[in-house]
Amino acid sequence: MLLLRIDRRGKTPLASQIFTQIQTLIQNDSLKTGAALPSTRELAQKLGVNRSTVCEAYQELWAHGYTESRPGSYTRVRKRPKSSTRSDTNRNGLIDWERKATKPSRFLLKDYEETLPGNGIHSLKGLINLDRFDLDYRLFPLETFRKCLNKVLDEKRAHLLQYGSVQGYRRLREFVAERSQIHGIAIGPEQIMITNGAQQALDLIFRLLTIPGETVAAESPTYVNFIPLMRYYRVRALEIPIKSDGLDLAHLKRALKKTQPAFLYTMPNFQNPTGISTSQDHREKLLSICEMHQIPIVEDGFEEEMKYFGKVALPIKSMDENKIVIYTGTFSKVLFPGIRVGWIAAEEECIKRLRAIKRFADLSPNNAVQAAVYEFCAQGHYDLHIRRMHRIFRKRMQAALTALDRHVPKENIKWTVPSGGYLIWVELAVPPTNGKFFREILRKHRLYVAPVNNFFYRKGSSLCFRISISMLNEEEIETAISALGRAIREFNHRLQEGRVIS
Amino acid sequence: MLLLRIDRRGKTPLASQIFTQIQTLIQNDSLKTGAALPSTRELAQKLGVNRSTVCEAYQELWAHGYTESRPGSYTRVRKRPKSSTRSDTNRNGLIDWERKATKPSRFLLKDYEETLPGNGIHSLKGLINLDRFDLDYRLFPLETFRKCLNKVLDEKRAHLLQYGSVQGYRRLREFVAERSQIHGIAIGPEQIMITNGAQQALDLIFRLLTIPGETVAAESPTYVNFIPLMRYYRVRALEIPIKSDGLDLAHLKRALKKTQPAFLYTMPNFQNPTGISTSQDHREKLLSICEMHQIPIVEDGFEEEMKYFGKVALPIKSMDENKIVIYTGTFSKVLFPGIRVGWIAAEEECIKRLRAIKRFADLSPNNAVQAAVYEFCAQGHYDLHIRRMHRIFRKRMQAALTALDRHVPKENIKWTVPSGGYLIWVELAVPPTNGKFFREILRKHRLYVAPVNNFFYRKGSSLCFRISISMLNEEEIETAISALGRAIREFNHRLQEGRVIS
Repeated sequence: MLLLRIDRRGKTPLASQIFTQIQTLIQNDSLKTGAALPSTRELAQKLGVNRSTVCEAYQELWAHGYTESRPGSYTRVRKRPKSSTRSDTNRNGLIDWERKATKPSRFLLKDYEETLPGNGIHSLKGLINLDRFDLDYRLFPLETFRKCLNKVLDEKRAHLLQYGSVQGYRRLREFVAERSQIHGIAIGPEQIMITNGAQQALDLIFRLLTIPGETVAAESPTYVNFIPLMRYYRVRALEIPIKSDGLDLAHLKRALKKTQPAFLYTMPNFQNPTGISTSQDHREKLLSICEMHQIPIVEDGFEEEMKYFGKVALPIKSMDENKIVIYTGTFSKVLFPGIRVGWIAAEEECIKRLRAIKRFADLSPNNAVQAAVYEFCAQGHYDLHIRRMHRIFRKRMQAALTALDRHVPKENIKWTVPSGGYLIWVELAVPPTNGKFFREILRKHRLYVAPVNNFFYRKGSSLCFRISISMLNEEEIETAISALGRAIREFNHRLQEGRVIS
Repeated sequence: MLLLRIDRRGKTPLASQIFTQIQTLIQNDSLKTGAALPSTRELAQKLGVNRSTVCEAYQELWAHGYTESRPGSYTRVRKRPKSSTRSDTNRNGLIDWERKATKPSRFLLKDYEETLPGNGIHSLKGLINLDRFDLDYRLFPLETFRKCLNKVLDEKRAHLLQYGSVQGYRRLREFVAERSQIHGIAIGPEQIMITNGAQQALDLIFRLLTIPGETVAAESPTYVNFIPLMRYYRVRALEIPIKSDGLDLAHLKRALKKTQPAFLYTMPNFQNPTGISTSQDHREKLLSICEMHQIPIVEDGFEEEMKYFGKVALPIKSMDENKIVIYTGTFSKVLFPGIRVGWIAAEEECIKRLRAIKRFADLSPNNAVQAAVYEFCAQGHYDLHIRRMHRIFRKRMQAALTALDRHVPKENIKWTVPSGGYLIWVELAVPPTNGKFFREILRKHRLYVAPVNNFFYRKGSSLCFRISISMLNEEEIETAISALGRAIREFNHRLQEGRVIS
């Protein structure tokens, strides 16, 4: 007969106690395959509990695959199928995943590993990661957002937890459409689709517009997570060098005589990684060149709201009478990166197709999160938050530029002076092959920057790196950039000692 | 001079009032391009407000692109670039998106449109959609989930709103690993990746394992959103017919003599759409066939937790000593569909590659939502909720089967008797070409089912449809199925009148 102990004072329900003890007996083979358990009536009597309690425990045992029962017969311990055990996990399997993986997916693995900060970097005490492009969480309007989330869960109730519209929560699309008008973009909610951040927007656009072997034009350097997509989708990269006033239009014109890209990818504001913004005039020219060649422009407006200084240029999309521009936006670089809410604005015929791709990629975005973002915006908090971010980052960017002026030796070096956003691009007049050595010296000074090649499809022609101030306050900026000054001084000194690699 | 009116008693901040009024003057051309605004000092004096208030308003005007200013000079109304207006939206653009769209993306659009319930269906009063596979929101544990969400936002604070781990929130992965042990699956958190529901899991697996022209094996009929992925990724579909005891193993064996699929996709429990579950013996055989041919199995365990009746079989993954099984799970069909949290469990070498693909697809999943789901599970609510769902759906499934027995005429018709889940598959012994006519009659009886071809890569051989009880309570089931009985009676009668189409 079974030896079970029931603890009537404990918090564990009686049925769970019975379940756990019989489970243990089966697992340690005290109850062998085929053994009959006592009838529920019998066990209930013996333990002095309700029969329904025993029934519940037996049902759990059955549901977990420990027993089988037929009507009118005893419940018996069933044969457990051979099952892999935890100790197996170190043994190699039958399949060589490296070989099974498609070639394009292997590019992604390589790029993924190369764009990770090296092992141990994050645990280096006092290290400042100058490349890190999260937002400063100290500025997150968390409480307000939480209230909005609770409000929408109160009001819309359980419906918010159903599958939502593939194209995104309608009221949020309406808000984005309305907000776009501030930037001169005239669209309605039907021309907008919500995505999991701007990254998914780019991935969906690749799926819509490219097949292997086609060309995609992009600024060089460009967004670090755009380059792997070009490799994955096996397109030819047409790299258009970026000059101090934006992508080189003359270069683009010459290139377009020979090739017709599937689309051109550009960031007119505070380009990632260079921080360069283009003028209205440059934007108009770029648009008319692409119109002439009927090349869709993918305009990445990831920091549209973050203009601090200087003359304002409106997005290319605002002049897009001929509807060749697919605009991507995001809440990640102003509000919170982790909510994963971005959008695509484009002609309805284009959105319609992207929507079908999105449907089979992941069905629909998270309704409750979208509703909360909408509520946050509709209550005016988004506006207030943007103003606050402006006030703070205008000062921080100024502090960074001042610190660079003060601490960094001027010979053989230049950096951009962005009019918004969070990124400054620094270029040293030495070959990129010095990168590893340079980053070793930085590490000694407790600094991290990303390898230059992350930002180029092929290769950079000089040693460059990106400074992101998105996570740093003024004091931290001063600390980081004075350390950077010392590191560059040491680097220059060591180079003069003859360590130049060219 | 500007004519502005300030309302000191209103709620609108003074700076906003000034901004809005000047904005209007510019928009209606009262202030023309090049016109100088009064100096901030002058306007402040005139309106009797602080100069800083005017500065703020001017800054907003500038930020919105209405003005330009140079140091030491007046702020002037700037030339607004030509901008597309809302009335443009009906005009066609320069780009023919149908032509620009890649062929695979066109398949998706077609599939998307074909799998939507027809126009006007949802607005038909009293219509019951027998195909709809959301969950019954009346059973959602919304309040408990909301408490969990607030708790994690309280505890983890703003960090939860940063970018998260690509592979998913660690503690949730630990929970999923632990929970998997109940089903005999021995894995750790490193072998798990969180995805945006099971759909994204499938999409990522296609990206990892297939190139155009390869073969993918799947049950026929199969999951309605899996078929478009086969077309999109341009693989050859190897359709393995499903019999009453699961996919036809003899058929599979014969087919494998001629072809080596990139993977085999199967749902051993309550298969979607047929509701059929396979025995432990069938699973073991399927596993060993695939091991012999070194074919990865993609096991879709979307309703692993929803077993109500009969003998329990453990997932194929539980026997996967040779690590050929990629298992996909989801919270969508037990908890809430809208939170978009699913997972993949596979050998670490496989997960590592899927993680890289996921990174460039959408960077990372939503941290806060994952943390809330973890909290919900860790507090034991998931277990309780599953038990509740069992109690309720065991009765509902029984009610549906009883109603079918009672209301539907038995001639030339059969349906499956599922041991769990929400789906019953009905097959009429008439050619599928009768589908349109059948669905018209259903519509008359205020019922909707999906077209049979949605469930087949090629074509079904008879008229079948899926009944989902996931949104219906016992009363609604009785109403729906008695209406179905009447509809089928009418259909049979009309067929006998000579409307058979073969």
